[in-house]
Amino acid sequence: MTDTRSDLLDILTASLGAQQVIRDPDAMESYLVEERRLYRGAALAVVRPGSTEEVALVVRECAKAGVAIVPQGGNTGLVGGGVPYDGIVLSLARLDRIREVDAFNATITVEAGCILKAVQDEAEKVDCLFPLSLASEGSCRIGGNIATNAGGVNVLRYGNTRDLVLGLEVVLADGRIWNGLKGLRKDNMGYDLKNLFVGSEGTLGIVTAAVLTLFPRPKSRTVAFIGCASPHATLDLFDRLRRRTGDQLTAFEFMPRFALEIVLKHAAGAVPPLGGWHEAYALIELSSPDPAIDLRERIEAVLSEALEAGIVEDAVIAASEAQGEALWHLRESLSHVQRLEGGSIKHDVAVPVSKVADFIVTATRACEEALPGVRVCAFGHFGDGNIHFNLSQPVAMEKAAFLAQWERFNRIVHDIVHDMNGSISAEHGVGLIKRDELVLYKDPVALDLMRTLKSALDPQNILNPGKVLTLEAELPPALP
Amino acid sequence: MTDTRSDLLDILTASLGAQQVIRDPDAMESYLVEERRLYRGAALAVVRPGSTEEVALVVRECAKAGVAIVPQGGNTGLVGGGVPYDGIVLSLARLDRIREVDAFNATITVEAGCILKAVQDEAEKVDCLFPLSLASEGSCRIGGNIATNAGGVNVLRYGNTRDLVLGLEVVLADGRIWNGLKGLRKDNMGYDLKNLFVGSEGTLGIVTAAVLTLFPRPKSRTVAFIGCASPHATLDLFDRLRRRTGDQLTAFEFMPRFALEIVLKHAAGAVPPLGGWHEAYALIELSSPDPAIDLRERIEAVLSEALEAGIVEDAVIAASEAQGEALWHLRESLSHVQRLEGGSIKHDVAVPVSKVADFIVTATRACEEALPGVRVCAFGHFGDGNIHFNLSQPVAMEKAAFLAQWERFNRIVHDIVHDMNGSISAEHGVGLIKRDELVLYKDPVALDLMRTLKSALDPQNILNPGKVLTLEAELPPALP
Repeated sequence: MTDTRSDLLDILTASLGAQQVIRDPDAMESYLVEERRLYRGAALAVVRPGSTEEVALVVRECAKAGVAIVPQGGNTGLVGGGVPYDGIVLSLARLDRIREVDAFNATITVEAGCILKAVQDEAEKVDCLFPLSLASEGSCRIGGNIATNAGGVNVLRYGNTRDLVLGLEVVLADGRIWNGLKGLRKDNMGYDLKNLFVGSEGTLGIVTAAVLTLFPRPKSRTVAFIGCASPHATLDLFDRLRRRTGDQLTAFEFMPRFALEIVLKHAAGAVPPLGGWHEAYALIELSSPDPAIDLRERIEAVLSEALEAGIVEDAVIAASEAQGEALWHLRESLSHVQRLEGGSIKHDVAVPVSKVADFIVTATRACEEALPGVRVCAFGHFGDGNIHFNLSQPVAMEKAAFLAQWERFNRIVHDIVHDMNGSISAEHGVGLIKRDELVLYKDPVALDLMRTLKSALDPQNILNPGKVLTLEAELPPALP
Repeated sequence: MTDTRSDLLDILTASLGAQQVIRDPDAMESYLVEERRLYRGAALAVVRPGSTEEVALVVRECAKAGVAIVPQGGNTGLVGGGVPYDGIVLSLARLDRIREVDAFNATITVEAGCILKAVQDEAEKVDCLFPLSLASEGSCRIGGNIATNAGGVNVLRYGNTRDLVLGLEVVLADGRIWNGLKGLRKDNMGYDLKNLFVGSEGTLGIVTAAVLTLFPRPKSRTVAFIGCASPHATLDLFDRLRRRTGDQLTAFEFMPRFALEIVLKHAAGAVPPLGGWHEAYALIELSSPDPAIDLRERIEAVLSEALEAGIVEDAVIAASEAQGEALWHLRESLSHVQRLEGGSIKHDVAVPVSKVADFIVTATRACEEALPGVRVCAFGHFGDGNIHFNLSQPVAMEKAAFLAQWERFNRIVHDIVHDMNGSISAEHGVGLIKRDELVLYKDPVALDLMRTLKSALDPQNILNPGKVLTLEAELPPALP
């Protein structure tokens, strides 16, 4: 370690206390690997400031020493965005205070280190809903959700994380603090800085707190599970439902037959939702803050019309809250049970909703032609045009041989997405895993604008360097 | 005119045709003054390109010549943002094609010069709603709405213009075209460039086209007019309504007694909506895409509870579409009738919704103390926390003497807004009229970030220079 780097750690230790500057390899371990174990990083230390001012101090000292900073929340990301290759890990975990709940304004002000579940729970205490909901909600932290503009199952009704953020507090690359913690529905006092930081994956600034918007808590809910003949029929159903129940349609999730087959095969307690088999399934949820509204009646009206029109083959509407949970369980088991079917090659993509059925059909055919026996598990947030286009290995194939084709299938699937003017990163972000693909699929002018912004806001390139983009002069860190 | 400038106009004339480079003072007149006639500008010429490529050509040539460009749509802005002080006016009016309507994706792709009303009409043809709605919708152009992040009466349910923009096409300061015309609900392929341009008032780039999001067209609607004892009671009513009918509450507008008095005095066809007089009025609209839903029943349930709780003094629910229009007419006449009461000093401010009643009461008292006899007309988008805090002159005062106090009242009102962590520019933008006030009320780090972004994206400072902000080295253009 050079003197400068060693001095930096001494300064940070003196300022934050020895306990908050972790150098022990074993204690650092959980900060260096990520959820899917695709990457293993290395760092000088893990630094755990306890306040915004301490975050600012750490950034100032790192800027002086020219040492890179990798901000980290719950370290549940799926794209390698939180993996350090150099410099320090800056953990936001100790900034976990709920600063304010304002029920009349329908806002909550939280620090970046708050666990998502804790934010949801706090909202519920004032009979409100914080709608961001995703698989890792018990361990991901809101700062990470903001940094990656997380999606999830409620985007159809409530938007992405971006849409839930009214204000931010951010530590900039030079250690200055921008206080943008306003809880306003309308504010045109100059450029929109907030959205620049949301989704920038810690490369432009470090989010330390946010004002988030809350909604009236739903008081009635109806869940239905529908069997359709094809993705195209499912799209017809979606269009009818949205046009009629637009405001109440909270989720519209898609599963192909193969997905339901492996769920029923592996998931504990999974029960067949319908009598026969269908090529395409939709899980639908309607909800409303009005306890008196009859959502069942509303969904029945649309479904009976759709049955008559031949769009729907079969359907079940949950008769109880418990039955609704059981239907959701089918969808939520999917990530888990795929692991039990061998190797998976995954894509998190989005296309215009009008093209989502075309995409599923076209990409499925292309993959099946490229590798006979491959089992396509294209599921997810159909109503957002966001499909987790996952491929399970052919039954008889070696897992490693299948996974060796990762890049080949990326090209096949992402080319189709690109032709449909879609996104190769819908809700998980870019991080390391899609950084170099961005160069293939992103408008070059947009890429250049991104570099311009990065250079303007972080001229030393110390904030999460090498993630999302590389600067022209910079060599990318070696991928593992 | 210097040779460079004269050469520029020759080049533009040769490229676009003489008809599209207007130099005649009479023909230029309507481009040089703005709606409220607060500013009169001057320009070398008005240039009217007919395509994105032509816009790019104009910008490239201006960049070469170092000549400033003031982009202009319908020239209906209220803050002087479209007034030229130098260089050319670039009119987007000829870029008025609807490029695509995708009903299944619920999107419309439009060019910047489309009149807002034309976009609304086009959406209606496919049984959809484009919800942006404001007084000037018959003449404002969508590019201007995007450049100023326009608000209006439907923000409560559908958001600001920003929230309706899925993708953009922008000509940058060097004449390059960024094609970001994606119609996706989820896209995390790098930094959010779109929101940087939305609301930047033409100072960072020139919006030439956009993908906008559509909604199911409402099939049922209920309008009510409510009398309350105070702004605080009105806030209680708003909270109850939102919690129960959240998804259907499309508008919640506020008018004080004085506002209704002058509407009934001056507006043609205005009829007293309720029997007696009340200190505070709310105009409420509920709507739903479901024709079968009984919105009247839903609003009655909330109102009868609110009457019992003493929150509401009196209420009327429109019995017909025509009666609903008549109630809206009371609200919509307000801007017009204020002019008939002499001079007005206006403020377009927002505070957290929880503070909107406090704000109205506190600011009203402060203004009445500062100038006995002043008549406060604080009305507007209560549900967004956005109040048009307008002051009508004391009856016996000279109009000029009253208007001479504009800055004094700005200080009084904006200081209160600032103390409540509000915005001194809620929906109209900054332009020239609030540029120098921004320096007083904006977080200095945010202002510095804005300057950094401006310098990075427009290093020559040729895009609408002197609007929104001044760069440190630059002298502001003389205010009229």
